[in-house]
Amino acid sequence: MALEKIEKANDIKNLTTEELQALPEEIRTFLIDTISHTGGHLASNLGVVELTIALHLVFDLPKDKIVWDVGHQSYTHKILTGRKDAFPTLRAYEGLSGFPKRDESECDCFGVGHSSTSLSAGLGLAFARELKHEDYHVVSVIGDGSLTGGMVYEALNNAAALKSNYIIVLNDNNMSISENVGGMRDHLSKLRTSTGYRGFKEGVQSSLEKIPVVGDKMVSGLRKMKSSLKHLMIPGMMFEELGVMYIGPIDGHNVEEMVRVLKRAALYQGPVLVHVLTEKGRGFAPAVRHPSRFHGADPFDKEKGLPLKSTNPSYTDIFSTVMRKMGDRDEKVVAITAAMMDGTGLKRFHNMFPERFFDVGIAEEHAVTFAAALATQGLKPVVALYSSFLQRAYDQVLHDVCVQNLHVVFAIDRAGLVGKDGVTHQGVFDISFLSPMPNMVIMAPKNKYELSDMMKFAVDYNGPIALRYPRGEANIRYEEFRAPILLGKAEPMIEEGEVLLFAIGSMVDTAMEARNILKDFGIEVAVCNARFAKPLDTEYLKQASKRYKTIVTLEENAKIGGFGEHVLACLHEMDYEGHCEIVGIPDTFIQHGAVDVLKEKLGIDAKGVAQRVMDILN
Amino acid sequence: MALEKIEKANDIKNLTTEELQALPEEIRTFLIDTISHTGGHLASNLGVVELTIALHLVFDLPKDKIVWDVGHQSYTHKILTGRKDAFPTLRAYEGLSGFPKRDESECDCFGVGHSSTSLSAGLGLAFARELKHEDYHVVSVIGDGSLTGGMVYEALNNAAALKSNYIIVLNDNNMSISENVGGMRDHLSKLRTSTGYRGFKEGVQSSLEKIPVVGDKMVSGLRKMKSSLKHLMIPGMMFEELGVMYIGPIDGHNVEEMVRVLKRAALYQGPVLVHVLTEKGRGFAPAVRHPSRFHGADPFDKEKGLPLKSTNPSYTDIFSTVMRKMGDRDEKVVAITAAMMDGTGLKRFHNMFPERFFDVGIAEEHAVTFAAALATQGLKPVVALYSSFLQRAYDQVLHDVCVQNLHVVFAIDRAGLVGKDGVTHQGVFDISFLSPMPNMVIMAPKNKYELSDMMKFAVDYNGPIALRYPRGEANIRYEEFRAPILLGKAEPMIEEGEVLLFAIGSMVDTAMEARNILKDFGIEVAVCNARFAKPLDTEYLKQASKRYKTIVTLEENAKIGGFGEHVLACLHEMDYEGHCEIVGIPDTFIQHGAVDVLKEKLGIDAKGVAQRVMDILN
Repeated sequence: MALEKIEKANDIKNLTTEELQALPEEIRTFLIDTISHTGGHLASNLGVVELTIALHLVFDLPKDKIVWDVGHQSYTHKILTGRKDAFPTLRAYEGLSGFPKRDESECDCFGVGHSSTSLSAGLGLAFARELKHEDYHVVSVIGDGSLTGGMVYEALNNAAALKSNYIIVLNDNNMSISENVGGMRDHLSKLRTSTGYRGFKEGVQSSLEKIPVVGDKMVSGLRKMKSSLKHLMIPGMMFEELGVMYIGPIDGHNVEEMVRVLKRAALYQGPVLVHVLTEKGRGFAPAVRHPSRFHGADPFDKEKGLPLKSTNPSYTDIFSTVMRKMGDRDEKVVAITAAMMDGTGLKRFHNMFPERFFDVGIAEEHAVTFAAALATQGLKPVVALYSSFLQRAYDQVLHDVCVQNLHVVFAIDRAGLVGKDGVTHQGVFDISFLSPMPNMVIMAPKNKYELSDMMKFAVDYNGPIALRYPRGEANIRYEEFRAPILLGKAEPMIEEGEVLLFAIGSMVDTAMEARNILKDFGIEVAVCNARFAKPLDTEYLKQASKRYKTIVTLEENAKIGGFGEHVLACLHEMDYEGHCEIVGIPDTFIQHGAVDVLKEKLGIDAKGVAQRVMDILN
Repeated sequence: MALEKIEKANDIKNLTTEELQALPEEIRTFLIDTISHTGGHLASNLGVVELTIALHLVFDLPKDKIVWDVGHQSYTHKILTGRKDAFPTLRAYEGLSGFPKRDESECDCFGVGHSSTSLSAGLGLAFARELKHEDYHVVSVIGDGSLTGGMVYEALNNAAALKSNYIIVLNDNNMSISENVGGMRDHLSKLRTSTGYRGFKEGVQSSLEKIPVVGDKMVSGLRKMKSSLKHLMIPGMMFEELGVMYIGPIDGHNVEEMVRVLKRAALYQGPVLVHVLTEKGRGFAPAVRHPSRFHGADPFDKEKGLPLKSTNPSYTDIFSTVMRKMGDRDEKVVAITAAMMDGTGLKRFHNMFPERFFDVGIAEEHAVTFAAALATQGLKPVVALYSSFLQRAYDQVLHDVCVQNLHVVFAIDRAGLVGKDGVTHQGVFDISFLSPMPNMVIMAPKNKYELSDMMKFAVDYNGPIALRYPRGEANIRYEEFRAPILLGKAEPMIEEGEVLLFAIGSMVDTAMEARNILKDFGIEVAVCNARFAKPLDTEYLKQASKRYKTIVTLEENAKIGGFGEHVLACLHEMDYEGHCEIVGIPDTFIQHGAVDVLKEKLGIDAKGVAQRVMDILN
């Protein structure tokens, strides 16, 4: 096995030609085997096996720097830098991260998770090299999907200022997580099919020589037009116009070709983009057929290509159904997503109402301002994003939606702990960053029925309104508690004892569970479903402040700036004399791991909450 | 006077040819007169007088929609839509806003303030038109400076999907607020000097005809290459590659030419970009010479072109001096700004250390991630941004800097109320959005000495650290209080009485003033300068909680999620039995007006605070 011989960075360079030829298949087999057990990003990793091999053959890590955009395609990179044996712990608590991380390996020069950062980071590394008069290569590897993110252009606009080598590898598989969209896709698609140019710019000269000579004047005219003629010969004008040299497209599954091109690209003084064509899911037929299903996969049967266990409907599924109904009921409802049609559950809406569905690409900022403009015309835009990606549109939510008090519904999926994707994907800041925005309403459902009711409420409301719900299976309990949704009104569920558990969203279930535990100890506690993080139900809190000696707030959000601090401020204003205990995410970044493990470690599971109550009572 | 005849939208269409010819100068005279008294954005408005006239001649407002990017260039638009008489109140409390606002006029279809939103908004309006089967034109007017913002590309990438008319007017004055930067500038600069194309794409055909016929094969070859030949004839390939038709460049001071081109552009089915060349400051020599000085100007002497009153050094000036010193002392210090070299005071640093200065254009996201990468290499990046624009980089601060715990210094200018620029520019959210980010340190100085000390502290610190300071004159009082800056340590200033004013940043002065007022009423209060919003000085608060019956927190930031709520949470955890009163910005957007007027209205000036203390004591 060639793979056995790779124990650290650069070991790949000692492989024989035969071993090198066998390596891609060994890696693919290893990846499919491992991920079928651990779950993880499969399709994207299968696509870049040869590309990663080529990069590791040409460059010298950790001296040279490879920045992986998004980073979920870095598994082969991890294998080639000595982390193969850690793969059984992939994405598990304290195990190997699914993304590059600076504290995991010296060969991970820049941590990632969100899209479109790799050019900014790569340029930073390249300029740092210049300032420090050092000598190393910097390579950013970015997928075509990430090219829809605006940050990339902000960086490209700055790239031309760099007078030394910097390589951008465009890993083009014609896919983001869902299918790609937009003008850039069309542009790349033209490039992909271009037959013309496969080498360096210098080739232009010889191409010119081949144009039949038809008189001096014509030739001299043509020669003058040489720089313009680049447009005829060279695809990638778009990049060249911004001062980035373009090479490609080349075959992203041909190691030899890539090694040759990368070596030449490494000689160029200035930013250069190498356009590489890869196939997402390559080598595993189910992943080629359903790259979206094998984007971030749960453990699966590698023979059948199907998930090992069937899962109950997720919140995303419930949202999907509600959106279809909403779309049916009200033709003003439009849906917007940022390259997450499947992930956010909008596929059905898209199929039924294609003209009212907008996938804007990985472009959260644009998505939100676009929605704001639709709202000015009386449409009812629902923007479905993951919590951690909504962070990208902070200013647009504030500046374009809230300042103008427009009716945009934010369906915030993956709010709270997301688990295995880890630190960059935990959706634990949205309550904190949305609450200070005037006009914003923030809700979170306790179960699937409430998600449905809240969505209807949100669509009928008039103003900025957000609905946050977690990743994974939807809670189906507590159907008996289904009071109508009223703006800023909580839902008291259990009223007994001297301690109130005032919980929001997923933590209502935790509170109910904690109540059961405490009951076994003979302790009665009340439970109230807050429903709204903003506006708070001050009327209810007024009553509660009189009735309960202790009020424990529970949320799957950062404690700082979260629901609990606002409840406390509200209670303090009411001269509450009891104790208010805030349960939430502490002031630290939460790494990857199963959600239940994380909750236990953080003491925010039912057991931890029950213990906390007992501590307070003692 | 032609101007007298314009009382509402479309009145301009009734002017005689002579009146129309006189109009630009009348408007310029009016603008210079008015702004010399009120202050405001002069240079940008002088640049678009003819362009705005042309737009109002061609389009029918409010039916047709004009979206102004940033919006500080909308004065002529306001004049032409019946708001001329309100100009004496420009940017004053309850007066005319300096930016388009939906609630000010039906002709302001989308509110703005921040850069690069106009294409997203314009596309939203255009798609809404399609969905509702309505019939109106949508025009986005965007400056070349705003083209460096990534959102523009996110929107451009989506533009091609629109099959009906949508016009982007590129108002190209070769300037953002400071001088323009980057590959896009170079690209536009090529376009500006291109002599080729001044009409429509159809012109390509006739250009082709003029190529000497040199044999059938050649001609047929050339004809086949027709689409490629566009590149020879038509500048703006960059836009065309993304599926946006390009027209230009045309003279932005020739009303007739613009009217002709805009009318033709309005017939095109799909997105079309009209490239218009304008001169910033046109018609007022001092503004042409110093467009940056006349970007957002204070009242000035229109004969001399100089500000009416000399101002004392601002916090920006102090920062400027410190940065120069820091740069001198430590060659690892680098400075990054987003098109705000003058505004943030980095010009001197730039002049002294050009290779360590990076103006990335209006590209806050890129600025922050770029800085993060520099920090990984041991450099000490100082990112200088306005508070309201840092909002654009929320995710990058969290995901790239804080997650990786990198040493990036955020110099947050214009933090707190900024006054006349109004709602979109108030820097009152930064404490709220930065506080929940793990690893982040947040400071605010009480006076110029402390700004200087804190900057030194920040540069020597190791980790994400932010320093927020207000717009305008730096406080020079309280020099006697200059204890060394220690991480998370407050600075007690006055210790007496039973009430503590625990203030941060600019509010320390307010607290001291309030103390003086209260003294006159025989009430003693203590004052402590918090210095750090995060981490809080828990040791000091512990002592304070024992000593003071009332603790009043003071901040120029939103109360929700702000300094006060965190102090309260901290005190509550300490079982504080006294009262904690939070003084800050209430949960509402703060409109434009002089800062002192706004503070008085909000009750957060010294008088208001003193009154609040007296109310509590009674």
